[in-house]
Amino acid sequence: MKKAVLLLSGGMDSAVTLYIAKKKGYKTHCLIFDYGQRHRKEVGFAKRIARITNSEYLVLHIKLPWQKSALLDKGISVPQNRDLSSKKKGIPITYVPARNTIFISFGLSFAEAIGAKSIFIGANARDFSGYPDCRPLYFKRFNDLVKKATKVRGITIETPLLYKRKEEIVEIGKALGVPFELTWSCYKGGRKPCGRCDACRLRKKGFE
Amino acid sequence: MKKAVLLLSGGMDSAVTLYIAKKKGYKTHCLIFDYGQRHRKEVGFAKRIARITNSEYLVLHIKLPWQKSALLDKGISVPQNRDLSSKKKGIPITYVPARNTIFISFGLSFAEAIGAKSIFIGANARDFSGYPDCRPLYFKRFNDLVKKATKVRGITIETPLLYKRKEEIVEIGKALGVPFELTWSCYKGGRKPCGRCDACRLRKKGFE
Repeated sequence: MKKAVLLLSGGMDSAVTLYIAKKKGYKTHCLIFDYGQRHRKEVGFAKRIARITNSEYLVLHIKLPWQKSALLDKGISVPQNRDLSSKKKGIPITYVPARNTIFISFGLSFAEAIGAKSIFIGANARDFSGYPDCRPLYFKRFNDLVKKATKVRGITIETPLLYKRKEEIVEIGKALGVPFELTWSCYKGGRKPCGRCDACRLRKKGFE
Repeated sequence: MKKAVLLLSGGMDSAVTLYIAKKKGYKTHCLIFDYGQRHRKEVGFAKRIARITNSEYLVLHIKLPWQKSALLDKGISVPQNRDLSSKKKGIPITYVPARNTIFISFGLSFAEAIGAKSIFIGANARDFSGYPDCRPLYFKRFNDLVKKATKVRGITIETPLLYKRKEEIVEIGKALGVPFELTWSCYKGGRKPCGRCDACRLRKKGFE
């Protein structure tokens, strides 16, 4: 059975991506990152989704002591009710410097070590916050790098949701039986979702 | 004063690279990785070099639980007396999957957070063990990725020693006053250098 590495956040996009990989017949090995995120509760959701899908999983603890993001520093407010449809929406303060580059790097190391040729990530560049490390050209460049980065050749980063609208992601997930109630999106990580951060509003868009 | 991030291992190449960055007038911010390496004692050497040069430094603790390298797993022997001059020397078992990709990713995050535009790494593709993530095309591709990876633009990875012979690195270091006696190379990390691993033998070549 061919192996895939899954970067699992606990949110809906990575959960759908995991179900896509399962559907494609991969044995799934999830990497879950505890990186000091404000919404650390997503880690528990990720672990549960991994268990439900009979995936192997590892939780990696990472420190980014330079903070510089509303997701890492509770002294910085999470922006509310941004105009997410605008192309000029900019990159919000929830951006974590080079987060996906770090996550994918660990995914690459893990993939090479276990002999997986695919690294799945639920990145989306359509209904998204505007992060640079979610855009198509970023992944293209990363795949170009991967070709020269490892001893084992033929590893690729797979982004099946990159161009999907949020409502399409929900549809795909429903068809695959994704338990969306067991995913967590809200950046604030409180008892209930805040309903106003980018993550809550994009999620809501998907279900409406 | 412009800032630079330095990836500092405790070995001679990264020490010389640090002195090059200082000479170029950078305020140097070192990242030192404690990643479960067999020769963990290099971390102490790196910290000392950072202090001597009045650099800021951070030690990051990283776990690569998948091991798969003689540098991470003491059950795997470190190869001895390899023919390092051969172009067919291959990639040895001391290779750590995607190690430089992980290190540079953290360097990129750190650089973006503190406003540094340069990330220095002491990689060498001439007198080296043959690791894929030390080769020129690897760094070219990574710099192509960096252009699309961050919010802040204009960050680059600098590899001033990439094409140097080991003896040239020693010469440059001597001219800059690098205290080579305060650097550590041996992969085995014992009380004294083993003299037979790639790192010891490349070091020896530099000084002969």
